[in-house]
Amino acid sequence: MSETSEVTPAFSGPDGLVTAVAQDAVTGEVLMVAHMNREAWEETLSGGRAVYFSRARRRLWRKGEESGNVQNVKAIFVDCDADTVLLKVEQVGGAACHEGYPSCFFRQVTPSGAQIVAARVFDPADVYKKG
Amino acid sequence: MSETSEVTPAFSGPDGLVTAVAQDAVTGEVLMVAHMNREAWEETLSGGRAVYFSRARRRLWRKGEESGNVQNVKAIFVDCDADTVLLKVEQVGGAACHEGYPSCFFRQVTPSGAQIVAARVFDPADVYKKG
Repeated sequence: MSETSEVTPAFSGPDGLVTAVAQDAVTGEVLMVAHMNREAWEETLSGGRAVYFSRARRRLWRKGEESGNVQNVKAIFVDCDADTVLLKVEQVGGAACHEGYPSCFFRQVTPSGAQIVAARVFDPADVYKKG
Repeated sequence: MSETSEVTPAFSGPDGLVTAVAQDAVTGEVLMVAHMNREAWEETLSGGRAVYFSRARRRLWRKGEESGNVQNVKAIFVDCDADTVLLKVEQVGGAACHEGYPSCFFRQVTPSGAQIVAARVFDPADVYKKG
């Protein structure tokens, strides 16, 4: 288990993206899923904080740049076909989701519908200033 | 925390897909990331086993159909913008990855390169018959 090799994620599509999963390094909770382009990947590696590529805004997204809830990267993994990366992170502020929940996966799908199964850490209206 | 609502994942793109993350329901290990179309989603909900859509083969992929390593679904979550779902699963056979590792994220990216940090559960050559 000491084999090492070079690995570069398989950035693909018009924006050259891979999928990125952020997981709490301590609890194992899956916090969010986003995307990275090569620049986001390289800045994450060099800077130690999670940087994504926002498909909606078409620009680098330094997680926490607005809310202050940055993600300090503790370990990085790449999957078998190198089109997804997994970050184990320390989530500053205790909430990864812009909706104010610890994880973006705060809704469980049950036979009777979706149910919110987490408590809000912050109110988005207090954190994201309008205009 | 008893609020319930209907939720349908936001299937998008030419194949109508969402991203799907499978996580070990007991250990919290992130096992794999794949995709689902509406049919895969509905069969997963109704059948209780993970069904994905293979982008490479362009057809439903009933996880474990060849290897026997099915995923029994214990809980399902949907993220804030409903374009990613999270399955907490029991991974039969102890290996989610076609490379024979428990997780597809068996390579850690370190300053000196990628390092395999898991042990193989099976040899792919024994499990996937050629031809």
